Amino acid sequence: MIFPFTAIVDQEEMKLALILNVIDPSIGGVLIMGEKGTAKSTTVRALADLLPEIEVVKGCRFNCSPEGPFCSDCLEKIKNNETLEFEKKKMRVVELPLGVTEDRVVGSLDIEHAIKKGEKRFEPGILAEANRNFLYIDEVNLLEDHIVDLLLDSAAMGVNTVEREGISFVHPARFILVGTMNPEEGELRPQLLDRFGLCVFVNSLKEKSLRVEVLKRKAEFDDDPEGFLKKWEPHQQSLAARIIKAKENLKNVKITEDALSKVVEITSQLNLDGHRADIVMLKAARAHAAYNERKEIIPDDIKKIAPLALKHRLKRLPFEEISTELEKLNEVITRI
Amino acid sequence: MIFPFTAIVDQEEMKLALILNVIDPSIGGVLIMGEKGTAKSTTVRALADLLPEIEVVKGCRFNCSPEGPFCSDCLEKIKNNETLEFEKKKMRVVELPLGVTEDRVVGSLDIEHAIKKGEKRFEPGILAEANRNFLYIDEVNLLEDHIVDLLLDSAAMGVNTVEREGISFVHPARFILVGTMNPEEGELRPQLLDRFGLCVFVNSLKEKSLRVEVLKRKAEFDDDPEGFLKKWEPHQQSLAARIIKAKENLKNVKITEDALSKVVEITSQLNLDGHRADIVMLKAARAHAAYNERKEIIPDDIKKIAPLALKHRLKRLPFEEISTELEKLNEVITRI
Amino acid sequence: MIFPFTAIVDQEEMKLALILNVIDPSIGGVLIMGEKGTAKSTTVRALADLLPEIEVVKGCRFNCSPEGPFCSDCLEKIKNNETLEFEKKKMRVVELPLGVTEDRVVGSLDIEHAIKKGEKRFEPGILAEANRNFLYIDEVNLLEDHIVDLLLDSAAMGVNTVEREGISFVHPARFILVGTMNPEEGELRPQLLDRFGLCVFVNSLKEKSLRVEVLKRKAEFDDDPEGFLKKWEPHQQSLAARIIKAKENLKNVKITEDALSKVVEITSQLNLDGHRADIVMLKAARAHAAYNERKEIIPDDIKKIAPLALKHRLKRLPFEEISTELEKLNEVITRI
Amino acid sequence: MIFPFTAIVDQEEMKLALILNVIDPSIGGVLIMGEKGTAKSTTVRALADLLPEIEVVKGCRFNCSPEGPFCSDCLEKIKNNETLEFEKKKMRVVELPLGVTEDRVVGSLDIEHAIKKGEKRFEPGILAEANRNFLYIDEVNLLEDHIVDLLLDSAAMGVNTVEREGISFVHPARFILVGTMNPEEGELRPQLLDRFGLCVFVNSLKEKSLRVEVLKRKAEFDDDPEGFLKKWEPHQQSLAARIIKAKENLKNVKITEDALSKVVEITSQLNLDGHRADIVMLKAARAHAAYNERKEIIPDDIKKIAPLALKHRLKRLPFEEISTELEKLNEVITRI
Amino acid sequence: MIFPFTAIVDQEEMKLALILNVIDPSIGGVLIMGEKGTAKSTTVRALADLLPEIEVVKGCRFNCSPEGPFCSDCLEKIKNNETLEFEKKKMRVVELPLGVTEDRVVGSLDIEHAIKKGEKRFEPGILAEANRNFLYIDEVNLLEDHIVDLLLDSAAMGVNTVEREGISFVHPARFILVGTMNPEEGELRPQLLDRFGLCVFVNSLKEKSLRVEVLKRKAEFDDDPEGFLKKWEPHQQSLAARIIKAKENLKNVKITEDALSKVVEITSQLNLDGHRADIVMLKAARAHAAYNERKEIIPDDIKKIAPLALKHRLKRLPFEEISTELEKLNEVITRI
Amino acid sequence: MIFPFTAIVDQEEMKLALILNVIDPSIGGVLIMGEKGTAKSTTVRALADLLPEIEVVKGCRFNCSPEGPFCSDCLEKIKNNETLEFEKKKMRVVELPLGVTEDRVVGSLDIEHAIKKGEKRFEPGILAEANRNFLYIDEVNLLEDHIVDLLLDSAAMGVNTVEREGISFVHPARFILVGTMNPEEGELRPQLLDRFGLCVFVNSLKEKSLRVEVLKRKAEFDDDPEGFLKKWEPHQQSLAARIIKAKENLKNVKITEDALSKVVEITSQLNLDGHRADIVMLKAARAHAAYNERKEIIPDDIKKIAPLALKHRLKRLPFEEISTELEKLNEVITRI
Repeated sequence: MIFPFTAIVDQEEMKLALILNVIDPSIGGVLIMGEKGTAKSTTVRALADLLPEIEVVKGCRFNCSPEGPFCSDCLEKIKNNETLEFEKKKMRVVELPLGVTEDRVVGSLDIEHAIKKGEKRFEPGILAEANRNFLYIDEVNLLEDHIVDLLLDSAAMGVNTVEREGISFVHPARFILVGTMNPEEGELRPQLLDRFGLCVFVNSLKEKSLRVEVLKRKAEFDDDPEGFLKKWEPHQQSLAARIIKAKENLKNVKITEDALSKVVEITSQLNLDGHRADIVMLKAARAHAAYNERKEIIPDDIKKIAPLALKHRLKRLPFEEISTELEKLNEVITRI
Repeated sequence: MIFPFTAIVDQEEMKLALILNVIDPSIGGVLIMGEKGTAKSTTVRALADLLPEIEVVKGCRFNCSPEGPFCSDCLEKIKNNETLEFEKKKMRVVELPLGVTEDRVVGSLDIEHAIKKGEKRFEPGILAEANRNFLYIDEVNLLEDHIVDLLLDSAAMGVNTVEREGISFVHPARFILVGTMNPEEGELRPQLLDRFGLCVFVNSLKEKSLRVEVLKRKAEFDDDPEGFLKKWEPHQQSLAARIIKAKENLKNVKITEDALSKVVEITSQLNLDGHRADIVMLKAARAHAAYNERKEIIPDDIKKIAPLALKHRLKRLPFEEISTELEKLNEVITRI
Repeated sequence: MIFPFTAIVDQEEMKLALILNVIDPSIGGVLIMGEKGTAKSTTVRALADLLPEIEVVKGCRFNCSPEGPFCSDCLEKIKNNETLEFEKKKMRVVELPLGVTEDRVVGSLDIEHAIKKGEKRFEPGILAEANRNFLYIDEVNLLEDHIVDLLLDSAAMGVNTVEREGISFVHPARFILVGTMNPEEGELRPQLLDRFGLCVFVNSLKEKSLRVEVLKRKAEFDDDPEGFLKKWEPHQQSLAARIIKAKENLKNVKITEDALSKVVEITSQLNLDGHRADIVMLKAARAHAAYNERKEIIPDDIKKIAPLALKHRLKRLPFEEISTELEKLNEVITRI
Repeated sequence: MIFPFTAIVDQEEMKLALILNVIDPSIGGVLIMGEKGTAKSTTVRALADLLPEIEVVKGCRFNCSPEGPFCSDCLEKIKNNETLEFEKKKMRVVELPLGVTEDRVVGSLDIEHAIKKGEKRFEPGILAEANRNFLYIDEVNLLEDHIVDLLLDSAAMGVNTVEREGISFVHPARFILVGTMNPEEGELRPQLLDRFGLCVFVNSLKEKSLRVEVLKRKAEFDDDPEGFLKKWEPHQQSLAARIIKAKENLKNVKITEDALSKVVEITSQLNLDGHRADIVMLKAARAHAAYNERKEIIPDDIKKIAPLALKHRLKRLPFEEISTELEKLNEVITRI
Repeated sequence: MIFPFTAIVDQEEMKLALILNVIDPSIGGVLIMGEKGTAKSTTVRALADLLPEIEVVKGCRFNCSPEGPFCSDCLEKIKNNETLEFEKKKMRVVELPLGVTEDRVVGSLDIEHAIKKGEKRFEPGILAEANRNFLYIDEVNLLEDHIVDLLLDSAAMGVNTVEREGISFVHPARFILVGTMNPEEGELRPQLLDRFGLCVFVNSLKEKSLRVEVLKRKAEFDDDPEGFLKKWEPHQQSLAARIIKAKENLKNVKITEDALSKVVEITSQLNLDGHRADIVMLKAARAHAAYNERKEIIPDDIKKIAPLALKHRLKRLPFEEISTELEKLNEVITRI
Repeated sequence: MIFPFTAIVDQEEMKLALILNVIDPSIGGVLIMGEKGTAKSTTVRALADLLPEIEVVKGCRFNCSPEGPFCSDCLEKIKNNETLEFEKKKMRVVELPLGVTEDRVVGSLDIEHAIKKGEKRFEPGILAEANRNFLYIDEVNLLEDHIVDLLLDSAAMGVNTVEREGISFVHPARFILVGTMNPEEGELRPQLLDRFGLCVFVNSLKEKSLRVEVLKRKAEFDDDPEGFLKKWEPHQQSLAARIIKAKENLKNVKITEDALSKVVEITSQLNLDGHRADIVMLKAARAHAAYNERKEIIPDDIKKIAPLALKHRLKRLPFEEISTELEKLNEVITRI
């Protein structure tokens, strides 16, 4: 049984960043930076547990959506005029094991099938499991660079194309990527940092009353999980409904010229590499507007999400100047 | 034949930490730090030997408990309305071999079975062997990080989920984790330190009369093991009974508001990362109360177990300041 | 769906270098240097998407052209008087996976075929896939040297000859090589730099109005890709036509004595190693003339392409003198 | 043919340490430190050659003793009421090859048998060969740590339990462990040093007359080995008889309170880690008493063996203070 | 189609060194040192293309010469009184792939044949391909030492003897070894330098008119390769004829006492290690005499080839003194 | 065809060391130190070629001598009362390939035989090939330590015992070990240095007339090998006869008390580790006496061979003091 998302005490920034990615997965994931023991993994699992089941093609190894895009298997069936059936499935948090190989990430030749049946078949990898789910990478900075690259490329393309060992297979690979790192244990190349849509910092709570609350809820949950879940059920249902509604209304939120220029205004002043920050800010602001049931992006939406979209994209400076840079970020945001 | 637990001279802190974990395995294991030749391994084996047999599903490769949770094999039987039979088994100390591979830890595809029968079957790993037993890791600081991670994750989840090479298998993995390390031979990342519930330091005895006693008992045991065991049998039985009773009464010990706030009081003053220390202290204090046949946690329970739960979670400081930090810990504890 | 090439804002130098290589692939590829997030990969894919289908031998695993050169399979058919049939295929951007092995690049023995049929057959590698396509290597400076060597050798020879494990196979391997690198993440040996025909630097746009334009077009495309493509269709068709015409007229552009001596004039003054710069400049200038529908190379053609052909071939100097060297390059070019 | 043990000139300390281990193998082996060319290996082989044959279960791959403990094979036979037959075998010096793998040390699955007969069988490793023999490790400091750990663990437990690849096998693994090292070529971790029962230093002889004697005996042996052996036969038989008698009387030597307290007296003054030194001293003193046909340990027994049991357990100090520490050892011993 | 050897502009020293090795392959190969882009590989391929076909045993996998020496296969046929047939073959430039393994160089067991036919057969390696051809190693200083050793050993012995995996096979391995290296990218051990017969330095041409000529010829060749080849045919034939004649007359050139003493005179003054320089100089001088249609070595032959034979054998000195050493070489040569 | 041993100019020390080892192989081999190009390998091959054929058991894969010791195969035949037949074989120089594995050195399971016949058979390794031959290791200091150890152990024991993968095989492994090293390219551990019986330094000849002679003989041999061999035949036969006679008389040379004490006199004064130097000197002196047809060792025998036996056993000192040590050696030798 999983601790309810709404019973997690405080940590609002992390929760917001995750929710915005659920509303618009094209935002590009969340990188969570922070110390040990701050319930990062618990929070992601709790959010996945909160969300309603998704509809998938029955028997499809890739969780293809009834509206597509489809994997090679489903496309084959469609071509052969077979009727696709559907079923409901819970969203999962797929965890990337440490020391994972490229084969295991993208999938590979199904050796057993090849030996037994004498034909090549695709053995799905983690990108297949992750389709339409969360993909959780603990301590992403300890992962090998080429694996991180692979994941971020797939996250960007939304598709996994495999052309190896004589197999030719395509399947959708759309997932909400969540990485965590403890900045004290090694950095991430700026190339990779930039590929995460949003970034949040989490710390353990310092206020005593909050800590007692955390401890109490945990003890209560451990003693009687079922009772605890029942008590929190109303909060859970209300948040789930709000997220679903935001998701449905997302495309109706208007992108005004003013929003466009405010976004560029901010990034221009900050001397960022590339254009990714612009598009992430625009999308996150729109998701935030939808979450707050607005029809149009307002400056407050941009202000709210700007730190999440920009902090990890600031030029890295000699240590003593980081705070200067963060101050500048705050100034720039305030001025908008 | 195994040296009796109750005949081990002194080393009370190590013995207490182990016993508390037997009473409440969710405390999360013990890390024993200390010099060579201090009978760390002997003590763990002796405790396992002291405890009564456990009841398991007959023929189950994972020692499933009659009350569950169950492994995939048992669940299959239950689904098919087969009646599960039970048997008694001695608890074991499963030792993690040095240089162990991930495959061996989590289990893997049973290649022989696959070749002979043409079907995939799960070959249990060390996590399977360890279920409901002790898992002992000598010199845990010399182990590869990703293996330690694996073990600590399983210890935290209480379950081992395998999804690889086309196998899909779940089994409970609840064990009492005991790690040892000699701090002179390399450190453990704070991430990992924090995941051990309790931590104790052991040293060889300095008092001459105790040393003679150790030597005498060892020589006596080596000369006539059976006679020696007979002599200590009453002590063994009495301790076993006390532990079993504490285990049964654990859930009846009341967690008062006062206990909650005392725990948080201590951790707040010590500037610890994360919230794990809070919950470990609460559980250890409760186990200690049960071991002393109390119905409620009293401040002395917290004082007694606080050093075991906190010493390894203090922020690491430049060497000269460690003692300052330990003094502070003592002050904080005393003040409660 | 792919973002249209003609809708990419600015970045003219990168676009020109790619187009010249399409007009005359013997120029030898493009090395794109620049920061993250500057749409390098998107631009290459967009150009491939813009170009018309190519004619290939039907069923040939190497995309052999109807006019040859032919692979061993096609040659065998010709020898046996079988009629070759043809079909049309879209050009592709073949991406070199990180951590790729030599086997995978050049091709290898088809083990499955060998086991099943008891005969050796060639399993095509990436060089086969790349024939008559783009070969895209992201972060070429992070690739192992011997793989880069292999690729550049094949690019130079236009053919892949495999003589290993008892297989003897030849196939054409003519592709447009595009490498990218972030110069902050490690250098490329001068040996390898020299083997890329042209080199361009890309940066993110600094002008606010351009940035808004980029963001707007991206948002527009993401919202309604089909509508966006329709809007840009006329630009796409016009550019495609211009490139095809230039390709057809390439051999009709006259190489005058004056062009020859101007080229050598420039390289002599710059103290370059080897003679590759001379021939690349001549070819790029001719392609540029054809692209501008001229019948003869004029000095402006040489001036335009000289920086693309020379910047990466300047002797590497202690850091402070690079700008001196670049100034010298500009002076030399201006003087022509 | 092997050079006779009794013809080895001088090196009395090394010879004594080896003999004591033969009398009581639970002393825990010998570590021989010294320069090259000092006949370390020759001496061990010579001692093994001197000893009488041992009685083993006929056909047992583990040299099980008629009195047990037994291996899984013998236990199976006993369970099936088969009568065990016995035979005599010469003791061997099993040498640990450099670069040996864990598989080879503990044994592994017999692949050939598995393939041919379709059943799993245990393929004995070096620990099996070593049972009731000498296990000789040259340059133990150059061996990988985890292999040394394995060997010392087995030496301590006296049993090898294999649970891997689906095999479950137990066999006794009681051997006299002899390691050599040249301290100039790298150290041994104190953890491991402590696990060797005794330690001796050997040097080449400096006295000219002894050297001539060594050379003469060696030349004589090389010229006419059979004649040489004949000449030394009486010495050989007499020493063998003395060792066997000491072995039989070992358990009759009384451990007095005085001996216990003298042992602890010494170790307490030397600031040693752990309690292993105490028990080793007690056992070695008792073996020495038995070798000298005494019924009780006398102070001289303890004085004689103390340097062998303690020198390698002294805390390692900055180089200049080692001699101080050794002096202290001598003082402490003398004072007893 | 290959650029004609005689159309290569300048680079006389490299061309001479290669030609002398064709005339007398026992000179021991050429090491070409120089910057990138100086047509080293092109020149070697062009020379191989220029030379007439060689006669080989028909179907022999090792290009055995009709006059022998023979490979194990041919010897077997001769023993069985089978008649050997002959055929003509073009000389090839066999290139040593980077990262090549020892197996691939010397040949290995033909696994496929072994599995299918149940008998061991030799699978020829690169030394087999290279027999009577050129063996070209690009960037020889980047190759692993033991591979370079292998090649130089075979080059010296002229034979490849394989005794491994139960195969026993001998075949001639006489080839003209050509290595290239860029001295800026790492050195070659003096052991290996010494094993190359001759050594030349190449640089790109500095004279403008020569550069224009290079560019013009390359452009002309690229435009119309067939026309270009036709134009140069007479030069090609005349050089080929001259080389063949020199080869035939080689053994008729007299080695005078004067030549012997002049050679030793030079090497004695230069403080070289070993005697290889002496014999290389003698052979190269004789080949040079034959190339110039002389019947006797004259001092000019020695002067001409001395720098090629000696430059890479001078004792390596601290950088600043190399020129001193080269001056000394020139002086010594001039004086002869 | 091989250059005749007696035609090798100068290098008397190397030749003597090799000859003494042929006369008494128990001397323990030769380590040749020196620069490149000094015909080390040629000299060893030439000596092997000079020696008469040896008598071996017909068909034995280990060249067993008719007088034994025998390999497991021959012992099996003898046990079965099969008559052993004999044949003559040329001695060979077995060369240790670089990068050789332990398997290849000691031999291994014959996989092919195991698969085909279903029984385990021993596949001989290099130690088998080397039995009763020369074993030549070029650049022994570049070999992996554990391989060198293996070889030196076998050389010392004269036997190769294989107990692995279920095979149990013994065969004699008596060979003359010759190692070469260039001291500029890395050292050998003193442990290993000490295991070579003798050690010589070779340099290229400095005297001009000798160099001319070397060059002349080489050129003469290359031009007409058969004629050259004929010319040197008488010298070859006379040396061969002398060596054979010395070999036969070796055991008749008397070892006097005076010789023993002179040997020890020398080594005592030089502060050497261990006793190996003593026995090597005695044996080499005896072989030298036999070679000079004496019945007794005289002081000159000892003086002559002392530098060969001792130079590599002197304690290594800081560089500047080596010459002091060598002087001391000379003094000590002179004084005898």
